[in-house]
Amino acid sequence: MSKEITSREQDYSQWYNDLVLKGELADYSAVRGCMVIKPYGFALWENMRDQLDRMFKETGHRNAYFPLFVPKSLFEAEEKNAEGFAKECAVVTHYRLKTDPEHKGKLIVDPEARLEEELVVRPTSEAIIWNTYKGWIQSYRDLPILINQWANVVRWEMRTRLFLRTAEFLWQEGHTAHATKEEALEETRKMLEVYATFAEEYMALPVVKGVKSANERFAGAEDTYCIEALMQDGKALQAGTSHFLGQNFAKAFDVKFADKENKLEYVWATSWGVSTRLIGALVMAHSDDSGLVLPPKIAPLQVVLVPVYKGPESKVVIDERAQSIVKELKAKGISVKFDDDDSTRPGWKFAQYELQGVPVRIALGLRDIENNQAEVARRDTKEKQTVALDGLVAHAAALLEEIQEAMFNKAKAFRDDHITRVDTWAEFEQVLEEKGGFISAHWDGTPETEEEIKAKTKATIRCIPLNNEQEEGKCILTGKPSKERVLFAKAY
Amino acid sequence: MSKEITSREQDYSQWYNDLVLKGELADYSAVRGCMVIKPYGFALWENMRDQLDRMFKETGHRNAYFPLFVPKSLFEAEEKNAEGFAKECAVVTHYRLKTDPEHKGKLIVDPEARLEEELVVRPTSEAIIWNTYKGWIQSYRDLPILINQWANVVRWEMRTRLFLRTAEFLWQEGHTAHATKEEALEETRKMLEVYATFAEEYMALPVVKGVKSANERFAGAEDTYCIEALMQDGKALQAGTSHFLGQNFAKAFDVKFADKENKLEYVWATSWGVSTRLIGALVMAHSDDSGLVLPPKIAPLQVVLVPVYKGPESKVVIDERAQSIVKELKAKGISVKFDDDDSTRPGWKFAQYELQGVPVRIALGLRDIENNQAEVARRDTKEKQTVALDGLVAHAAALLEEIQEAMFNKAKAFRDDHITRVDTWAEFEQVLEEKGGFISAHWDGTPETEEEIKAKTKATIRCIPLNNEQEEGKCILTGKPSKERVLFAKAY
Repeated sequence: MSKEITSREQDYSQWYNDLVLKGELADYSAVRGCMVIKPYGFALWENMRDQLDRMFKETGHRNAYFPLFVPKSLFEAEEKNAEGFAKECAVVTHYRLKTDPEHKGKLIVDPEARLEEELVVRPTSEAIIWNTYKGWIQSYRDLPILINQWANVVRWEMRTRLFLRTAEFLWQEGHTAHATKEEALEETRKMLEVYATFAEEYMALPVVKGVKSANERFAGAEDTYCIEALMQDGKALQAGTSHFLGQNFAKAFDVKFADKENKLEYVWATSWGVSTRLIGALVMAHSDDSGLVLPPKIAPLQVVLVPVYKGPESKVVIDERAQSIVKELKAKGISVKFDDDDSTRPGWKFAQYELQGVPVRIALGLRDIENNQAEVARRDTKEKQTVALDGLVAHAAALLEEIQEAMFNKAKAFRDDHITRVDTWAEFEQVLEEKGGFISAHWDGTPETEEEIKAKTKATIRCIPLNNEQEEGKCILTGKPSKERVLFAKAY
Repeated sequence: MSKEITSREQDYSQWYNDLVLKGELADYSAVRGCMVIKPYGFALWENMRDQLDRMFKETGHRNAYFPLFVPKSLFEAEEKNAEGFAKECAVVTHYRLKTDPEHKGKLIVDPEARLEEELVVRPTSEAIIWNTYKGWIQSYRDLPILINQWANVVRWEMRTRLFLRTAEFLWQEGHTAHATKEEALEETRKMLEVYATFAEEYMALPVVKGVKSANERFAGAEDTYCIEALMQDGKALQAGTSHFLGQNFAKAFDVKFADKENKLEYVWATSWGVSTRLIGALVMAHSDDSGLVLPPKIAPLQVVLVPVYKGPESKVVIDERAQSIVKELKAKGISVKFDDDDSTRPGWKFAQYELQGVPVRIALGLRDIENNQAEVARRDTKEKQTVALDGLVAHAAALLEEIQEAMFNKAKAFRDDHITRVDTWAEFEQVLEEKGGFISAHWDGTPETEEEIKAKTKATIRCIPLNNEQEEGKCILTGKPSKERVLFAKAY
């Protein structure tokens, strides 16, 4: 093996870091808590972004771009939102540097260039966007506004993890404005569906759709819908959220519209987002001790073709055949790399592409060509097959689909196997400790109980699943009556 | 007309603002000098970005993402670069807000959350990227690195103009690392060609390719290559730059590589960028007093189909026919909108799409259908034609190509007509005052003369054109000997 990967059993957290760094997804940077997304990781993000962007546009949304900075007076307008994010804000206070009179070649912040009003680097854009919408909305004819933004945001974090929790991250944030509560609620749920479809069909990541408890709600939202995924270590990861914001931001920014009867009403709002955090989820849900395992539909590279040369004459024959295979694969819309770099050996390449999670690897030697065959290896199961060259391209295409499906099924089986119904506190603690995963249990519905459970076990309510079965029961902690089970888990 | 546009003659500057605002490309924001890019403007940017991105990838580049923030100590490492941007830097000094004890519901910067080291919001990313490259480059095998980044940058500007000069703007910045000077120079020139091709073929914007004089060079570059375009008011606009950075950043960040003889050498660098400023160039190069005129290849909407209803029965017939035309256009890859909104009249729609620069407008009434025809109007010349319905889609497709070409030819004729050779100072001042455009004149090659000319006339040297004819002459101002003409102009 070219690069040593810590095994999951040995140290799950180090395993994750090894994959991200050695799989060349990202790197640390000189800026505390900020990462560099490397080309391979960024290509993955581009594929995810392009699919989501298509889905947003198909549901009637258009992209726009709003300022990076939020003046403090706007930021504080919606109190709950401001309160929720105040502790994580990077703040611009000055607009100029000047030469340090005491140290040649050094710069200092120019004290004379202090801003009259500080600017917050957006941790989320509701404030700046609703302040803008105010100017765009007069009548019901201006509604709905269905806008999405792809942007960077900054939330100052004390403990950071590559992709999972970084001070700066990339995301999309949808911000919509509606004439009625019903329409805004419908939008909130529609976008949750879009996220769930994307996670399951593209990322091969099974998710539970649900609603957050009040404690876990987005600051400023009336309701937060979410998709929750399960990682291999039994911890949950919130993979996307869609917020019904009610009229909170409309009231904070005084955004009213004249309805058909010319009566002034506050506008209803939603916002929804997913971020580069999804890459962390992807890595932790599917990968193994040999490296990344990427779903074909979003893998930066779907197929790699590795020639196995024996002497210079073999190169001519192999290269010619390889080029024609590459051409055929590309014609089918499959991304493929022919790695004819002769400074590294096939075995090194095999390990490298395994580490980087390329779904299908084809190895081609002279004897293979003589026998009209090639060796095809799938990354997810590591199975190898000898395939006739005539049907190779069709085989690869079918295999990519098979891998996509198999990865989802495997993750789903794991997830389903890790939803445990428990009815006693002892059982709750035991399952959490020994098995992990989601715990389906009764809860008395109070924030106090939720907090106590969190303090005792670090488990939080991940969500109240949509279309949850109504069932009389008793709270796992307090024994008070409950009408439905909720999903608890430790979470990223 | 639905929205009044100031004419170019009346007030060129106001005309530009009207087009941007009323054409719905962008809006002012609550943040000083920052704009909101509205959906229509952003769709235009997306089309431009997608074409450029494809061209970057075809020339071997990959996208990545580097942090928004640059620690001050890294920012100041390359002295000329730091000096050039220090006066325009937004600086983050704190990472937390807290409740204002004296004003309920207000927040203040938490004085206890002062950063040990200030963070500069990137005005450009050479510093953070070269600090990262240091960790990626050991040997010649790690070279070249060919990376591009799509990002937002901030340069604090005192006088801002929508798209042309804003505190925050969107751009791409390529940053490449090479083993030899020749290779870096070749890359610099290659990307200049990419920009020129993009400007001319997609934006229909003829450009002069050239090299900047020392005064106009990018801070930290050895040489700045540029493409310069001409606006309708006779002022030039720098539309893209490609910098040969020599070993300046490698030396500032101590980035060395072991060559094939295992000798340590400093790495050679380039950087190159275009920004949302290009949208300003696009608007000013082509538009007229009725609104925007957008080149078909990047227009957010290429064709609009406006039904001309007369009574409810006509609607059924027209809508059915219109839908089949829309389907056919889409099948040809043409973006089209069927505007059947019946709250506005056709005349209002015609004016609106004219204002927004949709290249082709098709109007369809009941009598048209009876006569197997439609009215087709092209935006650039405003010519209308009656076209047989059978050949309508093929006609529209051909017309889009024709418009693209005609727009380029028109802009090129204007530009060529506005390159004036002058040999005396009197003539120089007169042409600059009365005709504008580029002035091709001899210059003695000194920064002092260039500065004096700028002080006297506001004209700067836009570039020394590539493959410039060598010709003995005398400097327009000083009379000192010169070996070639350079292009002067007033500029945005």
